[in-house]
Amino acid sequence: MSSRAAGSVLLRHLGPRVFGPVSSAAAATPRSLHAIAGGGERGAAAVWVRLLSTSAAEAKEEAAASKGNAGSTAAAKAEAAEAAKEGEGKKSPVVSSYWGIEPSKLVNKEGVEWKWSCFRPWETYKADTSIDLTRHHKPKVLLDKIAYWTVKSLRVPTDIFFQRRYGCRAMMLETVAAVPGMVGGMLLHLRSLRRFEHSGGWIRVLMEEAENERMHLMTFMEVAKPKWYERALVLAVQGVFFNAYFFGYLISPKFAHRVVGYLEEEAIHSYTEFLKDIEAGKIENVPAPAIAIDYWQLPADATLKDVVTVVRADEAHHRDVNHFASDIHFQGLELKEAPAPLGYH
Amino acid sequence: MSSRAAGSVLLRHLGPRVFGPVSSAAAATPRSLHAIAGGGERGAAAVWVRLLSTSAAEAKEEAAASKGNAGSTAAAKAEAAEAAKEGEGKKSPVVSSYWGIEPSKLVNKEGVEWKWSCFRPWETYKADTSIDLTRHHKPKVLLDKIAYWTVKSLRVPTDIFFQRRYGCRAMMLETVAAVPGMVGGMLLHLRSLRRFEHSGGWIRVLMEEAENERMHLMTFMEVAKPKWYERALVLAVQGVFFNAYFFGYLISPKFAHRVVGYLEEEAIHSYTEFLKDIEAGKIENVPAPAIAIDYWQLPADATLKDVVTVVRADEAHHRDVNHFASDIHFQGLELKEAPAPLGYH
Repeated sequence: MSSRAAGSVLLRHLGPRVFGPVSSAAAATPRSLHAIAGGGERGAAAVWVRLLSTSAAEAKEEAAASKGNAGSTAAAKAEAAEAAKEGEGKKSPVVSSYWGIEPSKLVNKEGVEWKWSCFRPWETYKADTSIDLTRHHKPKVLLDKIAYWTVKSLRVPTDIFFQRRYGCRAMMLETVAAVPGMVGGMLLHLRSLRRFEHSGGWIRVLMEEAENERMHLMTFMEVAKPKWYERALVLAVQGVFFNAYFFGYLISPKFAHRVVGYLEEEAIHSYTEFLKDIEAGKIENVPAPAIAIDYWQLPADATLKDVVTVVRADEAHHRDVNHFASDIHFQGLELKEAPAPLGYH
Repeated sequence: MSSRAAGSVLLRHLGPRVFGPVSSAAAATPRSLHAIAGGGERGAAAVWVRLLSTSAAEAKEEAAASKGNAGSTAAAKAEAAEAAKEGEGKKSPVVSSYWGIEPSKLVNKEGVEWKWSCFRPWETYKADTSIDLTRHHKPKVLLDKIAYWTVKSLRVPTDIFFQRRYGCRAMMLETVAAVPGMVGGMLLHLRSLRRFEHSGGWIRVLMEEAENERMHLMTFMEVAKPKWYERALVLAVQGVFFNAYFFGYLISPKFAHRVVGYLEEEAIHSYTEFLKDIEAGKIENVPAPAIAIDYWQLPADATLKDVVTVVRADEAHHRDVNHFASDIHFQGLELKEAPAPLGYH
């Protein structure tokens, strides 16, 4: 994709605080700085500007491209490898200029570069902490009861293992929590393909849930560093849970979503206990990790307590989405027949 | 999530053409119409306005919520089922008001509702049709050669089956093309979780590729309707290919990405032949499907030829991304060590 087209594609990702309208003329001049408003309320409004292809990167790109077109990829590879070594010590490796794919850099007014590649400024948000945390789906039918007691019984060994080490608990359980959304989303994707059907937006919803849970992990990783035996346990649990949920979803998506709904209810309870321990001083209320401040648009002086509060709000939303998805199945409908709850986390 | 918070979350998805700044005061009044600029250049600028909870939907929601809180989900379910039936004949079913999750509706100035749930106005784009279609990765090492000849040999039965029925070919092969991105993205997601590592943006890149290919399918489905034996073939192929690519990616992501790169090169060739047949009048140049016009921001009088052109440009980009991903592996790096080519399709 040319720089010009890339520029116009990038403009499409403008966040809410644009300083004046951006004309299409601006879009046609790729070397100019395009103001992209980011989500953030940290003093001076965060405006993220995209720098398109530095001259050094472009020169390398053209050299690599011409070599590539001439068929000599070995030389181009050497070029890129050299560039990669050169880039390793810096924050912006040039290796991605190979194959004409420019690295995208977002820079705000003060020249601070956006650090995160797994989410962009316009994908940050403020969690709704007023969400009802007490909502509970009372199990009525047999399948619900099985789901409910499965989750309750899994809580027993979990509580024994973690005791009141909530930081560690959050970190390790988020490695599990990020699996269902991904598995569900993928299976819906495959179904949409083989049945030639629309998805109703549900693939996106479940993928967003998975990614959101992964961001919880990326956050708690900064707070609780995993030990070697915890890592080993995570490996084992992922192997078991991924397969169990995969086949579970194939057999009964109704049951799968209900289980996740109840898991999220337990997560809300755990995070509430986490907050109690922080407030009681049993767990140190450390400053919030940078990734959390950026992702949830927290104030710069946010603490672990603020982080746990927004994470808990996310879990409450996932609870609602999964119970809702299960309810749709219970009504004898397919997910695609009901509008997907998009645009939330 | 409350309506107010939903409103502020929604505002964060503003596209590039905002009519004046949207203040936070506006965000606090959920019943007002929030102007959201969509991507589109069709005469009057496409401004998509989000209608938040009609009074009927909200009344039902409150009734369902209070019933839910009282623990009587049976009554709420009946309510929702009734609403679902009521909603089925209309374009905006109310079933999703159950569990307090409001359906999101986007409406433009003329009152036309955005039809698509799998992509929103700000996710549409103009493909860069100036992308180099001739770029080819010359196989140098053994693994590259195996990948190349695997793809070339798969072409033989494919050509025999489809002959010059390019519409049907596109439709059926897109069911295959949408699998690798999803499988790769999911495996990277799982890896990020169990290793407690950042992804470098690559999960997002591969997911976008999968979703983009699925949009190709949703488009070609409108042009070529699948017959029963074609559907059966798609089922069989998906079963085989999904598993093969899944294990292939686990064993050698380097090889997997290289294969996809070469598959995309073949796709470009096929779409070029498709265009030749359209231009020669052998395939009817029908009007472009509505979904294609909205997704690629095509003019209202666009035809199949325009659609095939932009789809081909997408395939060229995927070719570059996958060859690039393979190259990163060849350099002995992991994907997360090189900036992911985000923001493109």
